[in-house]
Amino acid sequence: MKRIGVVLSGCGVRDGSEIHEAVLALLAIDRSGAKAVCLAPDIDCDEVNHLTMQETGAKRKVLVESARIARGEVSDVKNAKASDLDAVVFPGGFGAAKNLCNFGQKGADGMVQPDVLRLVREMSAAKKPICAICIAPSVVALALGKELSPRLTIGNDPGTAGAISATGSKHVDCPADEIVVDRENLIVSTPAYMLAGSISEAARGIEKAVQATLELIK
Amino acid sequence: MKRIGVVLSGCGVRDGSEIHEAVLALLAIDRSGAKAVCLAPDIDCDEVNHLTMQETGAKRKVLVESARIARGEVSDVKNAKASDLDAVVFPGGFGAAKNLCNFGQKGADGMVQPDVLRLVREMSAAKKPICAICIAPSVVALALGKELSPRLTIGNDPGTAGAISATGSKHVDCPADEIVVDRENLIVSTPAYMLAGSISEAARGIEKAVQATLELIK
Repeated sequence: MKRIGVVLSGCGVRDGSEIHEAVLALLAIDRSGAKAVCLAPDIDCDEVNHLTMQETGAKRKVLVESARIARGEVSDVKNAKASDLDAVVFPGGFGAAKNLCNFGQKGADGMVQPDVLRLVREMSAAKKPICAICIAPSVVALALGKELSPRLTIGNDPGTAGAISATGSKHVDCPADEIVVDRENLIVSTPAYMLAGSISEAARGIEKAVQATLELIK
Repeated sequence: MKRIGVVLSGCGVRDGSEIHEAVLALLAIDRSGAKAVCLAPDIDCDEVNHLTMQETGAKRKVLVESARIARGEVSDVKNAKASDLDAVVFPGGFGAAKNLCNFGQKGADGMVQPDVLRLVREMSAAKKPICAICIAPSVVALALGKELSPRLTIGNDPGTAGAISATGSKHVDCPADEIVVDRENLIVSTPAYMLAGSISEAARGIEKAVQATLELIK
């Protein structure tokens, strides 16, 4: 059974993983007959009240909040090894751009959280596919952009696409229910809620992205 | 376009709505061409750390946490009217049995949160269907059991089934990917994670339950 790492960044679109995207990725992985292995960094994040969309000033723990999406079954990404995984999937949400890296604050000048950076680089070096949803391609762009110039999509927002390109990556415009596949670098991306107007639309792109990722596994 | 209330109870299986069940219900509603209207009571709940599964002693706000699943689009159930909705769906999770009612603490002697109770009774009186997932049939059983003796399932756990029956409801054993439909009282239920071993299995039951609920709309 294929083991697919799902790297979560908390629980909620504004300070963690976008919940629909994460669940849709878990569903697509399970329906394909693979096993999802949930991972998250053990770091703090800035809590956002999702009713008012304002930061509260409080902190939450990314690993502990990610456990809500994972129904308790989540491990510190620090201990994840590329040799134990066949692929990794990064759901979106602001947590991907604020907790897994700081693209949200620094754009192309940002850095990837060290444990996540190590895993992305190990997966890439081992020629294992990486799938990034919504704004999560920013993690891949910061980790691999300079070295590999991967082809990625975050939809079609000019400012965000420009910042992705400034990492050395090649941004490709893409609709919500479609995917971009970089066969050379084994990277799949889909815009999901960067563009999707409904959960069904996001689901169509995520299902295609997970399927394409599994097909890239050697 | 049909409007389907989705009554959330927080965000996380141990102190709120079971996230997968809530998202799968939202997906099934959207795919059927109906509109989901997320609702939750504006009350506190006891926070559970989902990594350790222990109560932390802190409180969280059910409406604010529900907004994470609803991507911000959630209203106080106090203001919801049966006349504005065609059906309601209750995802499961401990929040359904601890926040929407206190079946989790008191079993058949429990009571339903007043705003939720009013909505359930209004929907029932208006002959509009109610769908309850996982442990959420406990809300319906406490609200309508004595008066209507609805047929419901929470899977096959003898203790829980016995407590459901003690409300005056009729419990029917049911596998995870199937549903129980009470055509007289317009109530649909499915066990989901009361029994499901995977997200795909829960999804099969939830998709059938949402479909059956929509078919009961007059």
